[in-house]
Amino acid sequence: MLKAEIIAVGSELLTPDRTDTNSLWLTEKLNEIGIEVTAKSIIGDDEERLEKCFRAAIEESDLVIATGGLGPTEDDVTRQVAARAVGREMFLNEEIVEEIRKRFAHWGREMPETNKRQAFVIEGGEVLPNPNGSAPGIFVAFEQKGENKSVALLPGPPREMKPMFENHVLPRILEKAGKVKVCRKVLKVSGMGESAVDELISPVYKEYSSIQTTILFNKSEIEVHLAAKGASEGECNDLLADVTARVKEKLGIALYAENGESLEYVVGQMLKAAGKTLALAESCTGGLIAERITDIPGSSAYFMEGAVTYSNDAKMRTLNVPSEVLENYGAVSAETAEAMARGIRERTGTDYGISVTGIAGPDGGSEEKPVGLVYIGCADETGIKTLRLMIPGDRFLIRWRSSQAALDLLRRRMMKKHE
Amino acid sequence: MLKAEIIAVGSELLTPDRTDTNSLWLTEKLNEIGIEVTAKSIIGDDEERLEKCFRAAIEESDLVIATGGLGPTEDDVTRQVAARAVGREMFLNEEIVEEIRKRFAHWGREMPETNKRQAFVIEGGEVLPNPNGSAPGIFVAFEQKGENKSVALLPGPPREMKPMFENHVLPRILEKAGKVKVCRKVLKVSGMGESAVDELISPVYKEYSSIQTTILFNKSEIEVHLAAKGASEGECNDLLADVTARVKEKLGIALYAENGESLEYVVGQMLKAAGKTLALAESCTGGLIAERITDIPGSSAYFMEGAVTYSNDAKMRTLNVPSEVLENYGAVSAETAEAMARGIRERTGTDYGISVTGIAGPDGGSEEKPVGLVYIGCADETGIKTLRLMIPGDRFLIRWRSSQAALDLLRRRMMKKHE
Repeated sequence: MLKAEIIAVGSELLTPDRTDTNSLWLTEKLNEIGIEVTAKSIIGDDEERLEKCFRAAIEESDLVIATGGLGPTEDDVTRQVAARAVGREMFLNEEIVEEIRKRFAHWGREMPETNKRQAFVIEGGEVLPNPNGSAPGIFVAFEQKGENKSVALLPGPPREMKPMFENHVLPRILEKAGKVKVCRKVLKVSGMGESAVDELISPVYKEYSSIQTTILFNKSEIEVHLAAKGASEGECNDLLADVTARVKEKLGIALYAENGESLEYVVGQMLKAAGKTLALAESCTGGLIAERITDIPGSSAYFMEGAVTYSNDAKMRTLNVPSEVLENYGAVSAETAEAMARGIRERTGTDYGISVTGIAGPDGGSEEKPVGLVYIGCADETGIKTLRLMIPGDRFLIRWRSSQAALDLLRRRMMKKHE
Repeated sequence: MLKAEIIAVGSELLTPDRTDTNSLWLTEKLNEIGIEVTAKSIIGDDEERLEKCFRAAIEESDLVIATGGLGPTEDDVTRQVAARAVGREMFLNEEIVEEIRKRFAHWGREMPETNKRQAFVIEGGEVLPNPNGSAPGIFVAFEQKGENKSVALLPGPPREMKPMFENHVLPRILEKAGKVKVCRKVLKVSGMGESAVDELISPVYKEYSSIQTTILFNKSEIEVHLAAKGASEGECNDLLADVTARVKEKLGIALYAENGESLEYVVGQMLKAAGKTLALAESCTGGLIAERITDIPGSSAYFMEGAVTYSNDAKMRTLNVPSEVLENYGAVSAETAEAMARGIRERTGTDYGISVTGIAGPDGGSEEKPVGLVYIGCADETGIKTLRLMIPGDRFLIRWRSSQAALDLLRRRMMKKHE
């Protein structure tokens, strides 16, 4: 499989507000033809540093794509630096000078002398025309230590870079790219830690030499990223289906999404398929679960109502939580979670009523009931189940993980019933 | 001026969908203390390539910060690669093993053997505690070719990386940083477009040669980023205060935050200061406003209850919206928004009742009532004000911008009354 590296050139890409995004588009295009991107760099307008970067990239990979630094000013240094890294001379291409002159004439202007810089070309390199701007690109194919290497220099503005890549770089690298394709898949797991997932499934994925597996921890869920290499898309997808089926056997009910779907989407699809309805009673999550559920288009088919009962008055008024329960057990208790779930289900007449009450912090915790203590409840026609959780993290994470745990409780309950 | 390079480690950051964003935040923090970021790299889980990257970065700069690759699995290679690049051995730190074990025990789990990997430390390096995750960081200061160098290894998740950088890396590099200070300030503006803001304020900021001004459009609000350079923090802050006062004169009530505060924070502080209470009635925003309001610690002092009345039944049952209003005008109408705002305020007895009803799409639009049509209402003791909006964008943006418009309506109403 061919390896590519991408270098973005420009000091403006090293500020707190901006970064290189060209590489995302380029990665997609390269992956599609089976070329893997193994490194990306962003370098300012510093010739020495940029040359070092070019040299390392050429050494380590088959294809180097640089974007930016092809303008007419002195801090546009990509051309001369790439020439040095490749070990070639530069020369002025008179044809390009003429074209740039014509472009300026077309707008009724004279070409400034500095624009001649854009007409320098690397010896043995091919000029890539740029109908959308004044900087032409350069493509150089050469041999280094017996290996075939290619370097492409493209302009930075996406509307110039993209058509130049598609029309002039892609055709040149397609023949070299060979036949390898890459397909990706993201599995999501709830209720397990990163290392526990890895211990369970690594014996499986290690058997697949043409699948690259990465396990990621994302807020409160584990993601398993699979990238399969094969001769065709069909072969890749067969491989992915195969490993997914075996991973599923190991993870069982903990595996909730096979194509990167969010938990709110999965739960929504299950409710829809079963023809069931949902209402929510939230305290510490403050509307987050309702927001997630209604983020899914079409959720009005199964989501009826949410109550964000932040105060005790609201819990009594809207959810019918008895004042004795609040007095005897407190707002953060299994008893209150139970009464909230029952209350919202009775109030709305839905199939499921989900409740959350807890201490999201940073204040409001005590020794008996510390920050991170959360109760969730799930009411349905069979009764009410509650769970007690001790959730680590800050306010944001405690709220997010509570919402995740509540949705997962509902998912697991439905799995047991409607499967 | 000291130079820093940032390396993000992880194959998942080399896919078409994701990229390193930690470096933007880090760049801001480094710039603030006068350290310039001269290069950024993203490297997969390839030990050899990563080592080459570390070596080049150490050679070229004073400070190297790496994020990611500190997890417990085999593809987490940052620790050992950095040790090799620095020329030091690694050893197992039993104290860290114990701490990780305790973390697992706290959640009622046993530490998997693989987590021991996270307890390896570089010889002569300092361990940086991580209260938000299991991977501790490492800081190594050393000499190379007579120059002082520092390498910091931080975890990838922003919620772990950021506090670790602020609490443990910043103090260690502060003394080494130079004399030029850069201070930043973010002003936020509601209800105006990017170019309108620029036209109004550019005559002001152009007078300040040592302030760099960037105007950014962020979802539905305009941000004015100011970066002042000076010999001291005091000098920078004086400059920033000066330009802010003059910008404020130009923008008036549209300027809602002078220090990057969120609108939900600003509204919350106003409610608190005025001793007023709030309740919400949401349809198309589905709990998003409640979620934003309750994201602020201490919001229980002013936020009483939220109703996510997605179905018409819920609007009638919980908000007392008359069925004739829904029949005659529809759920998305000024009349319904008005009835919702009145209903939630009467139900909860709060000072303010805010309502939102609209069509977030992608389905549910018609010629008469297209996707993006949103009505918001604000009820207080003086009566009810409603606004009709046509909001561009997709479902996510329509919901977000609706929540922003509703909070801004409340803010402007309070400004008029309580100033």
